[in-house]
Amino acid sequence: MSKIKIGILGYGNLGQGVELGVQHAEDMELVGIFSRRQPDQLDTSSPAFHVDQLESMKDEIDVLILCGSSDKDLPEHGPYYAQYFNTVDSFDTHNDIPIYFEKVNQSAEKGSHVAVISSGWDPGLFSLNRLISEAILPQGETYTFWGPGKSQGHGAAVRQVEGVKDAVQYTIPSQKLLDKINQGHSIEYTSTTAHDREVYAVLEEGADSDQVEQAIVNMENYFKGYDTQVHFISQEELDRDHAGLPHGGRVIRQGYTDKEHQSLYEFGLSLDSNPEFTAAVNVACARAAHRMAGRGVSGAQTIFDIPPALLSPKSPEELRKELL
Amino acid sequence: MSKIKIGILGYGNLGQGVELGVQHAEDMELVGIFSRRQPDQLDTSSPAFHVDQLESMKDEIDVLILCGSSDKDLPEHGPYYAQYFNTVDSFDTHNDIPIYFEKVNQSAEKGSHVAVISSGWDPGLFSLNRLISEAILPQGETYTFWGPGKSQGHGAAVRQVEGVKDAVQYTIPSQKLLDKINQGHSIEYTSTTAHDREVYAVLEEGADSDQVEQAIVNMENYFKGYDTQVHFISQEELDRDHAGLPHGGRVIRQGYTDKEHQSLYEFGLSLDSNPEFTAAVNVACARAAHRMAGRGVSGAQTIFDIPPALLSPKSPEELRKELL
Repeated sequence: MSKIKIGILGYGNLGQGVELGVQHAEDMELVGIFSRRQPDQLDTSSPAFHVDQLESMKDEIDVLILCGSSDKDLPEHGPYYAQYFNTVDSFDTHNDIPIYFEKVNQSAEKGSHVAVISSGWDPGLFSLNRLISEAILPQGETYTFWGPGKSQGHGAAVRQVEGVKDAVQYTIPSQKLLDKINQGHSIEYTSTTAHDREVYAVLEEGADSDQVEQAIVNMENYFKGYDTQVHFISQEELDRDHAGLPHGGRVIRQGYTDKEHQSLYEFGLSLDSNPEFTAAVNVACARAAHRMAGRGVSGAQTIFDIPPALLSPKSPEELRKELL
Repeated sequence: MSKIKIGILGYGNLGQGVELGVQHAEDMELVGIFSRRQPDQLDTSSPAFHVDQLESMKDEIDVLILCGSSDKDLPEHGPYYAQYFNTVDSFDTHNDIPIYFEKVNQSAEKGSHVAVISSGWDPGLFSLNRLISEAILPQGETYTFWGPGKSQGHGAAVRQVEGVKDAVQYTIPSQKLLDKINQGHSIEYTSTTAHDREVYAVLEEGADSDQVEQAIVNMENYFKGYDTQVHFISQEELDRDHAGLPHGGRVIRQGYTDKEHQSLYEFGLSLDSNPEFTAAVNVACARAAHRMAGRGVSGAQTIFDIPPALLSPKSPEELRKELL
């Protein structure tokens, strides 16, 4: 059987994760990594090309995985490349998904391609579990807890504070609320009650730690209202102990099959590398995109539209025998 | 929009659970419960009919949910009714699934119907998570832990022991192994190391408790090799404290996105009522079966083949906006 030919657009953390994921997939081969940088500047042993060559190679690529950022790259890349390729992306600006879907869909339909959007874990697997749990247990409540994990947006916000030289931020789910759910109690969930925040910051020379701490914990939209712990550490400690990109979280539905009968449905991830796992989901979705295109499907798709068997390299018979 | 018209065949614990599930589904109506018993013997306010009337009502039913047992009823009901109806069942004899699938498939294809087999949680949602986690994380190991929950087969086995008047059995997942996984360690998993067993038994008058206990803990295929606790209690206590049908468990994949980077993927259920939850999954699958049939799909299907969006009463637009 011929392998699925994958292209990667963008070679940041996500693109590097996709490269690893394709190496782990026996039914795939990596045609090339495409970047705005010159190929010889990419630290990879995979074939690398300048992005200008991408369109001319469209007949050599079954699925192009778009690894640019949701804020700057994907709003342009998603609709543009879906004309020429089957694509997968991890567009994660939740509020903009409906508009993004429409644009990518139009373009994918025009090119008769499949474009899987918003793949990853949230949006992605978390969304899938919100859907399935709600469909099965219409009576109930769904809660999403994020973390423990590093939140890039919050880290960037802290680094803007005067007196902060460098910083990272961890989002921590409230153990108190999780325990209450596990004991079968209902909870009052808001994003602020359900999460705590932990900051590790390096001070600029001469900066006042109290003043910096107050500026952080009172920052609107990011920290105000949250239980925030600020730890001041050295740059050396930050570089040594906080370089990873761990993340995770859980989706919980507290549902009822009858008035007295609770069903607790829980899906959780604990990831040493957030971008590598997101990439791994993208790779499985690329397999599905290729197969859906082969069945004559076209247009934008999400994890909600993919028959799960298409994510796996195994045949339907193998899946039923081994995993059902 | 017209409601999906559901029939229920069989009115044991599962059939009663489906009745509840259909009541909770705004887009469905229950056409009737069909049983070998006379309609007036069923304790229900829903329309009830003798099973002999079922075939004559086939044009009034969109999906028939088969609620008989996997050992005696479904091997006959599954292939038979798939000729006349779109069906959903929860056939759960894992080893026989491939053969059962073929038989039901043939029959469903002949009648141009959709037949969703082996729906529920294991097989069912657990299978789905085994598939998805393995597809995303090809490097790794998947573990299934069952319980804490009441195992009907093991309870029945204990009740066969001489000197036992009545009994129930709970399967308990090994907390030690679960803790090890959560700490990121690899484990030696076998069904016996991963589960303990807890028996609550009522003795016949004059029976020797030591002798009975030895007979239980040494029973081949059921208890031998397991860490089994036997508690002798009165019939009154058994009836009062152990009447429920709780169950659950978890599927865990300990995967690697890179040599040093672990991803822990976990799916868990904790159910006050095992049959009601299984039924709730069947009801969501009935919705999907109806829609797949409407799209011209036919043949036997499993949870692996169902695009998840079809499980939900919400429109694709609502799903993307609210849950993605």
